[in-house]
Amino acid sequence: MKIINGGVCAASGFLANGIHSGIRKNKSKKDLALIYSEKKATCAAVYTTNKVKGAPLTVTKNNISDGYAQAVICNSGNANTCNANGIEIATEMCNLLASELKIGASDVVVASTGVIGQPLDIEPIKNGIPALVKGLSENGSADAAEGIMTTDTRMKEIAVSFEIGGKECKIGGIAKGSGMIHPNMATMLVFITTDCNISAKMLNKALSTDIQSTFNMVSVDGDTSTNDMVTVLANGMAGNKEITEDGADFEIFMKALNTVTMNLCRKIAGDGEGATKLLECTVDGAVDEQNARIIAKSVICSSLVKSAMFGSDANWGRVLCAIGYSGAEVDVNRVFVSFVSKKGEISVCENGAGVDFSEEKAKEILLEDEITIKITLGDGEGKSTAWGCDLTYDYVKINGDYRT
Amino acid sequence: MKIINGGVCAASGFLANGIHSGIRKNKSKKDLALIYSEKKATCAAVYTTNKVKGAPLTVTKNNISDGYAQAVICNSGNANTCNANGIEIATEMCNLLASELKIGASDVVVASTGVIGQPLDIEPIKNGIPALVKGLSENGSADAAEGIMTTDTRMKEIAVSFEIGGKECKIGGIAKGSGMIHPNMATMLVFITTDCNISAKMLNKALSTDIQSTFNMVSVDGDTSTNDMVTVLANGMAGNKEITEDGADFEIFMKALNTVTMNLCRKIAGDGEGATKLLECTVDGAVDEQNARIIAKSVICSSLVKSAMFGSDANWGRVLCAIGYSGAEVDVNRVFVSFVSKKGEISVCENGAGVDFSEEKAKEILLEDEITIKITLGDGEGKSTAWGCDLTYDYVKINGDYRT
Repeated sequence: MKIINGGVCAASGFLANGIHSGIRKNKSKKDLALIYSEKKATCAAVYTTNKVKGAPLTVTKNNISDGYAQAVICNSGNANTCNANGIEIATEMCNLLASELKIGASDVVVASTGVIGQPLDIEPIKNGIPALVKGLSENGSADAAEGIMTTDTRMKEIAVSFEIGGKECKIGGIAKGSGMIHPNMATMLVFITTDCNISAKMLNKALSTDIQSTFNMVSVDGDTSTNDMVTVLANGMAGNKEITEDGADFEIFMKALNTVTMNLCRKIAGDGEGATKLLECTVDGAVDEQNARIIAKSVICSSLVKSAMFGSDANWGRVLCAIGYSGAEVDVNRVFVSFVSKKGEISVCENGAGVDFSEEKAKEILLEDEITIKITLGDGEGKSTAWGCDLTYDYVKINGDYRT
Repeated sequence: MKIINGGVCAASGFLANGIHSGIRKNKSKKDLALIYSEKKATCAAVYTTNKVKGAPLTVTKNNISDGYAQAVICNSGNANTCNANGIEIATEMCNLLASELKIGASDVVVASTGVIGQPLDIEPIKNGIPALVKGLSENGSADAAEGIMTTDTRMKEIAVSFEIGGKECKIGGIAKGSGMIHPNMATMLVFITTDCNISAKMLNKALSTDIQSTFNMVSVDGDTSTNDMVTVLANGMAGNKEITEDGADFEIFMKALNTVTMNLCRKIAGDGEGATKLLECTVDGAVDEQNARIIAKSVICSSLVKSAMFGSDANWGRVLCAIGYSGAEVDVNRVFVSFVSKKGEISVCENGAGVDFSEEKAKEILLEDEITIKITLGDGEGKSTAWGCDLTYDYVKINGDYRT
């Protein structure tokens, strides 16, 4: 398997585009994205667990209930959520696009991200769709990735190639993250495309299994958005024998999918609102995987841990504290903690108590922009990893007046 | 019932003091506090739910297992938690104090607050105890309240007087809060004293009932500390007939206790680390009280809601979002939200969707330093209130480098 260019257009038969349509006032910011498959594709999706769900999610869920889709349209700048006419607008987006692309309206995945509770005007979208479709290109991944950004500072895309039964397959994806990112599924939009030939049932299985250890382990601020969605479209154009059951081919596909999703998770976490650092928390030796996940999430979500990391302060007591209140089954007297970065590793807590360590060395390690908080327990074989970011002045600044 | 002066010394027979002993380097900051009852008192306490528990809590729990105590000693600057010799040091604090006061060591409540995982030196405490005891005074409440402060910016005390069976009774308390404040019980230390005559059993019942709707509904940053504790000492010196069962007298006591605890909750929340505003979230019309509490807590804990309040931004979509992911049973289409302050009330969401409102008026209301987020549901009779604060640049600053 190898990392390749092309993002969401890396796989055969996928085109994409992103434009400024006028939903946003700032003309330099793209606000409408499109991904299109030349061939109808099997489709799987997972959605936010928030009870307040964006209208686009409801429409998408209905559209792809047959397991197929051919295009994805997504706007930024407005979440089309908590509006009286939300369903109507989301449906209209699908109709307008389908008519322009000459595909079925029920083959459209629709998504929106941005402010909640302000009516979404269909006009700019209606006016923008012809140009959006006309500009579809094999090189359009970056444009689409830009079109779905909100407070993201960096465009997020990735692709890999791999082989199944002698055929070269590709999976690529784009994502947006930033605020409101939290297990399970936060204003995180992820669109993945592949030319691998895989049944809708197995595609669903692959996605719903994969997210447990990837997107559901990412937290920026503990807020779970109303509009999250991860979708995968598989158009089969790689020509491999269709994957219809568990086995070696499915394992290879899962591994490739995981490479893409893990990469996007790290990109989303590292570009959390206001973040200066990507934080990774690894837990090993927990009673079981479930308890490992609870602990990793609790540490990565702690405002005090996040603030300490911003200050490059080896305040490991806060890590212990977050383990203690996580609710997980854990022997707090057998906890080992160390901090790891490119500059090395430093042990700060052994058997639940502090150890003498060089503050200077700790500072050097924590000044890096990718930090791993490594927790080793003595309770069993459970492992997990969670991703997050530091809590900074800029998070507060960005969110203190987001609407204006 | 009326609010009176005197704090933790308002009730008959209670003396207090607070000094700088040298645990902290900054000589202008008191770091050791003492509360003393001239008569042995019944005692009740509740502790953090964190599995990592400070050594002082273990020692206190053991000391007051007989239902009695006569003194409280508390240091700030060091939490005496996650240290190999924590129990030993906490026990020594009790022994040294008991010897100086000539009371039993098992009648001492001991508490510590500050950084976790750095050994607590007994020397400054040992050297400070004689002066601490010598300075005990009826006017010592403020000194004690100062002695337990960490990043608190304001000393917190309150007292009330009330009548039971023709006898005047008093309850007073001091508290410290600031960071790591979260349900249930965060680095929140609360010491309450009363001269009311009440059995240990009923005192326990009063406290454990009261905290469900008071201290457990306060959140500053979602982190639950290792060292929280709320204790009540009742020395019976008011001379009322001992309260030994439910009834009118117990009701009066509960009401007085609630006035004290509610006041301290608001003071703790309003003085959260870096806070510029006290936030109150009231929920009405929930399925039941439990669901009302879940919703109120979810909203008050949302980093996005807290940031919006810091920016005086009426971003009610985030309130809806936090209701949606709370996990509570709720009909999201029957949610009403308004913002309330001294400047008035403004409705921003009705039946789960936005309504037109004056942004100017909303701004005027939200610029105040005490804001109520009022949520009205259509699901039942459940009510609850939670308290918190806004998320500010200063929270990040304070916690980015707390240890130095």
